[in-house]
Amino acid sequence: MGDANTIEKLKGMGATMVEQVKGGKSPTFETPLRSRGNIEYDKAVGFLRLGDKTEERKFLNVAQARTFMQTVAVANKTKKFLLEDLHTSIRGLYYQLKFSLGENLDESLFEEQTESNALIEDLEVALGIKREDLHLTTDRKGVVAGEMVIKDNFAGEETTIDCAKQGRSGWMIPSDVDNGMEFVDVKAKYVLVVEKDALWQRLNEDRFWKKDNCILITPKGQASRGTRRLIRRLADIGLPVYVFTDCDAWGWYIYWTIKTGSMNLAYLGSDFSIPEARFIGVTMGDIEEFEFLKKLTIKAKPIDIKRAQEMLDYPWINIYPEWVGELKKVLKEKKKIEQDALQGEKLTFVGEYIRKKIGNKEWLP
Amino acid sequence: MGDANTIEKLKGMGATMVEQVKGGKSPTFETPLRSRGNIEYDKAVGFLRLGDKTEERKFLNVAQARTFMQTVAVANKTKKFLLEDLHTSIRGLYYQLKFSLGENLDESLFEEQTESNALIEDLEVALGIKREDLHLTTDRKGVVAGEMVIKDNFAGEETTIDCAKQGRSGWMIPSDVDNGMEFVDVKAKYVLVVEKDALWQRLNEDRFWKKDNCILITPKGQASRGTRRLIRRLADIGLPVYVFTDCDAWGWYIYWTIKTGSMNLAYLGSDFSIPEARFIGVTMGDIEEFEFLKKLTIKAKPIDIKRAQEMLDYPWINIYPEWVGELKKVLKEKKKIEQDALQGEKLTFVGEYIRKKIGNKEWLP
Repeated sequence: MGDANTIEKLKGMGATMVEQVKGGKSPTFETPLRSRGNIEYDKAVGFLRLGDKTEERKFLNVAQARTFMQTVAVANKTKKFLLEDLHTSIRGLYYQLKFSLGENLDESLFEEQTESNALIEDLEVALGIKREDLHLTTDRKGVVAGEMVIKDNFAGEETTIDCAKQGRSGWMIPSDVDNGMEFVDVKAKYVLVVEKDALWQRLNEDRFWKKDNCILITPKGQASRGTRRLIRRLADIGLPVYVFTDCDAWGWYIYWTIKTGSMNLAYLGSDFSIPEARFIGVTMGDIEEFEFLKKLTIKAKPIDIKRAQEMLDYPWINIYPEWVGELKKVLKEKKKIEQDALQGEKLTFVGEYIRKKIGNKEWLP
Repeated sequence: MGDANTIEKLKGMGATMVEQVKGGKSPTFETPLRSRGNIEYDKAVGFLRLGDKTEERKFLNVAQARTFMQTVAVANKTKKFLLEDLHTSIRGLYYQLKFSLGENLDESLFEEQTESNALIEDLEVALGIKREDLHLTTDRKGVVAGEMVIKDNFAGEETTIDCAKQGRSGWMIPSDVDNGMEFVDVKAKYVLVVEKDALWQRLNEDRFWKKDNCILITPKGQASRGTRRLIRRLADIGLPVYVFTDCDAWGWYIYWTIKTGSMNLAYLGSDFSIPEARFIGVTMGDIEEFEFLKKLTIKAKPIDIKRAQEMLDYPWINIYPEWVGELKKVLKEKKKIEQDALQGEKLTFVGEYIRKKIGNKEWLP
């Protein structure tokens, strides 16, 4: 179903161009502008998104002809992948194009990941689809375990994956969690996103997700596309999302990227943001709350302070007095706390900490 | 069982020191020297390992007292983890030590990962155990799918993980694949290690591991400790191991680190090397073999050439004429080939390539 819809959109784009040529006009292609000037934080919806400005790419324009041709080639090739029902990475797409178009296609076209990304982003925003819908895979990074069962229709097979039966490890979050993937039995009451893999492993050993009936996810740092989509889908079926990171600007920014997106990812919009997400820690306030943490803080480096200052300037963050307070404490006290520090007195304290924060609704917006 | 053995070793270390003190002597601690001068390639066994030189650390020695104390503290704390039957990361261990020993323990002691690693490495080589045996978790990175069933005893539960029922993704390879983990039903006939996650996903979509009856692993670049142990254990039960990487010095070095270890990892010895491993590609020879690859090569950068030159100097590599030939081709032709390029003509060619290489025994030692 998803595929048929995507194929139609790609065909529509081609048909429009053919008509333009038949009418004696230069083929054009309209795409929302992704530059800073067209990115806005929409307070009503709670995420960063593109504004109304669009850009028209013309084939008969010396500066645009090359990119135009590349975009059409990408659209044509991904349509082939959809019809073949096969997937590949952006790098695999590059080699397919290089092979078809011959050596005249400058290698550097796709050599820079940023440049190739730009072409895909053009198609995503212009057609209102995700690159995963174009059968392009992305790198996997996060892991999941917890009280849910997934029905996975993939490569002509139907597989049932019980995320509560993953033992000492977890199911690696796939590149595409949408097409052909269903949640058939979600017993969990909430989603817990834990920045670091080490803490995920600690909580998994405590069987925290079982005792507390949740879905335990680690993005392993900044969340991959697949991980963000998984969290979004779980939020869509009504599960609250709690995020737990280091107490420093970098950890907090992992939270904000999950919640509102970021400038670079604004083109993704609502599909990849979770404005409902809540932050349960670690906070600067925890230093006063938990006596043992006092001697486990780390001195913030100048770059940590600089990043905290930058975050204070983001209009999607500084509208929350709680966050302004936290960031100002960083600037004043010049300290940070790793989530690992919660194990300092007792390894199993991490779970107690999370229970207290969620139970008492001690979260930040 | 593993735990009881490790606890005995830690107790033995402590008992020796207590006896030394009672006898009026300075406590000492003997550990194999891990410096370059004591690392050798043992051709008979096929991996890099430490030689016979040892080093005695003395408590009553100004230069060593601090490290000595730290090592004893680590041994003491990890014994506690073993008795509690709980695991944590090196970072979790650091915070436990910092909490117990108070603020006098200089934070910078464990601030540098290299310094904390050195203490753990001391204990590993001195006691002949792995850090995983000390209940220390490491970061997870690789993924596995294929024809095998794992019985996992963990956190008081027994779980059965069928690696052939992972759908579009895979089971994340855990930190510790030894203690409490058994392979109960390995139908696979060999292990295929694929450098890049993108290629793993491609082969997983083709159900290559099912059609060809193998275990498909991606280390996602250099292999983690858990991934290397998993490959080692599968080789121990008689499965041939084939490695498939990019055709450049970096990809090839991923193979060599799996096969023989590396200078930095020589202290790990036989537990983390797979001398039986074979290399199936991509090779410089493939450029002549496969016509379509000719236009899909990439120009090697000066750093690629430099790295290839260095590899030619490694005595564990330059004993193989096949590898000398490959490395010299890189120096002469100044080209490289990504494994992704095999998809250039046809996405599903990757599987055909692997079948041809293994079927015709076209591998490098």
